[in-house]
Amino acid sequence: MTASAEAKGAAGSLPPVHVIGTGLIGASIGLALTGAGADVTLEDQSETSVALARDLGAGRITGPVEPGVVVVAAPPDVAPRLVLTALERWPEAVVTDVASVKQVILADLVRAGVPIERYVGSHPMAGRERSGAISARADLFEGRAWVLCPHDGSDAAATQIVARLAQATGAAVTTLSAADHDAAVAAVSHVPQVAASLVAARLEGLSEQAIGLAGQGVRDVTRIAASDPGLWTQILSGNAAAVGEVLRVVSDDLVAIVRALEALGEDTNVADAPGARAVLARSIAGGNAGQARIPGKHGAPPASYAVVRVVVDDRPGELARLLAEIGEEGVNLEELRLDHGLGLPFGLAEVSVLPAAAGRLSEALQGRGWQIHS
Amino acid sequence: MTASAEAKGAAGSLPPVHVIGTGLIGASIGLALTGAGADVTLEDQSETSVALARDLGAGRITGPVEPGVVVVAAPPDVAPRLVLTALERWPEAVVTDVASVKQVILADLVRAGVPIERYVGSHPMAGRERSGAISARADLFEGRAWVLCPHDGSDAAATQIVARLAQATGAAVTTLSAADHDAAVAAVSHVPQVAASLVAARLEGLSEQAIGLAGQGVRDVTRIAASDPGLWTQILSGNAAAVGEVLRVVSDDLVAIVRALEALGEDTNVADAPGARAVLARSIAGGNAGQARIPGKHGAPPASYAVVRVVVDDRPGELARLLAEIGEEGVNLEELRLDHGLGLPFGLAEVSVLPAAAGRLSEALQGRGWQIHS
Repeated sequence: MTASAEAKGAAGSLPPVHVIGTGLIGASIGLALTGAGADVTLEDQSETSVALARDLGAGRITGPVEPGVVVVAAPPDVAPRLVLTALERWPEAVVTDVASVKQVILADLVRAGVPIERYVGSHPMAGRERSGAISARADLFEGRAWVLCPHDGSDAAATQIVARLAQATGAAVTTLSAADHDAAVAAVSHVPQVAASLVAARLEGLSEQAIGLAGQGVRDVTRIAASDPGLWTQILSGNAAAVGEVLRVVSDDLVAIVRALEALGEDTNVADAPGARAVLARSIAGGNAGQARIPGKHGAPPASYAVVRVVVDDRPGELARLLAEIGEEGVNLEELRLDHGLGLPFGLAEVSVLPAAAGRLSEALQGRGWQIHS
Repeated sequence: MTASAEAKGAAGSLPPVHVIGTGLIGASIGLALTGAGADVTLEDQSETSVALARDLGAGRITGPVEPGVVVVAAPPDVAPRLVLTALERWPEAVVTDVASVKQVILADLVRAGVPIERYVGSHPMAGRERSGAISARADLFEGRAWVLCPHDGSDAAATQIVARLAQATGAAVTTLSAADHDAAVAAVSHVPQVAASLVAARLEGLSEQAIGLAGQGVRDVTRIAASDPGLWTQILSGNAAAVGEVLRVVSDDLVAIVRALEALGEDTNVADAPGARAVLARSIAGGNAGQARIPGKHGAPPASYAVVRVVVDDRPGELARLLAEIGEEGVNLEELRLDHGLGLPFGLAEVSVLPAAAGRLSEALQGRGWQIHS
């Protein structure tokens, strides 16, 4: 039994699920839960959308008698109203929403002044570049975090049911308060997006030769700058306070760096601007400390891998041959990065392995005729 | 004959080379040129360092009679003096330096008031996390850009000799003015480093659960935040004016975003803050435009690849088997990204291929039993 199938075993105990909103996320939840054996009904203000989701296998349309759990999969600005309606329509059901911001929604519900002990907000950390039921996938949540945000007044039993639902999609459940959730996604998702976009915007005016100097560093930093402006305007607006709080600190740090560079640009004599250099050094060191906190794969603590660099010709099958031979040596690949040379028909494969395996792997690959950049 | 060997064929016509400074870059240049058949002599203020470089095969120590070209491989603050001394010691030799900033050095030389037509600054875009001759590699420059910065007064013949030297190391030569070079590396290297460090610094104070939500986006944005503070303080100081110029624009953009978020945080009613949303949307769209300018591999224009996502078990050899089968289908892999799930024993391989090949590849892999996230 695979881990994925084990996770889905939990769905057998799920009460009937009603999904309101059959866009990408709602339809994917329907597909995942139906696939895991749950009884899923669907609802959407668009008849076309709900029919499409049904046809794709996300669930039945026939009106729910009495669902045990209701999932509101709608944008933050309509989610609170739909949650309140659901709590009223089904007085025994647990209700969750899956919007990517949580405080704004909880505040709206509290303001409504009705009991919300059966409501537990949540956020599956998954998405796609495309939207709509047509892009839905049963495996969208597999291996992704799904954050639960119980509040002061929520029932423990309600939280457990939402957790079982999330687990049944293959997601890894984690629990945070709404405020902590919003602050966390501001730091690990929303602020990196803004930084990537602003750095990328500075590349537009470069000459062909200048942009030709772009290496792996700027490629990595700006990869997510290709994201959709409409989607990100919604996300940033919905988490404005938390994103603003983190970005204000980044902005202050940046202003200090600009001032330090201005001081250094006017006078490059080391003795005259010791404070300016300290600002730069502290900024880079601060980044070291933060970067080191990002967990390694599988949620494990960050591991320090050894990197073996191998020259790989740019032909079909060459990289495969390399990885096959690494496999034959019994070495597990932890990370792989391809670094293509400028104007040359080969690349460098940076193979990350556990430090204890690196020396043996280098020797073995050289013995097999690979050129190693040691 | 490989492309690398072809590139090195140019070294046969190189005059004797004298390398001043046998740290990582100087020793690597010595190794590369010696390997390409050039006659290389070495010099360093540290006897230990120069002896080590010689023992590693980077060249001879015996004093040069009359080198045809001198490479000054020293930090920006000492490079101008060493260039001036070399021009004086060898009145027929071409002199280059390989520091990572070019205007400061050229300005120092012009200020000295001596003829500098035999000087052409340059910058090989290569480096390592480690320093010193002990870390030198003959292949450090293979496939990397090596920027030449001829100035108003430099001889065309001098530029040609430095170009031949760079080509002999396997590098791809490109020519920019010192000002254009400094502006280019500010935008494609120094500013991304600052942004990555500032974003990463915001992760340090997060809880374990919050940092556990980190996905591929923040990992990519902050990868280079692991860089050495001492090294980057030197680099940013040496290019203070150009980096400051770009960062001032980034800082202005960031302040506008923070103000927009403050306006939205106070009032989430769409109608009340239309200008604020426009600021966010324009910022993300600006990043789209800049990111699209980054060239694809081999210096070709950016290609739009199709991505095929395949579930790969976390066992030695599984990724190899996948890539072997892609090779057997005759499909060339353009890019490969591994995306590990949180807490699950498998990952997603994102296989980028030419769009025309994607459909056939998906079908073929499914036929071979792979699970595709379409």
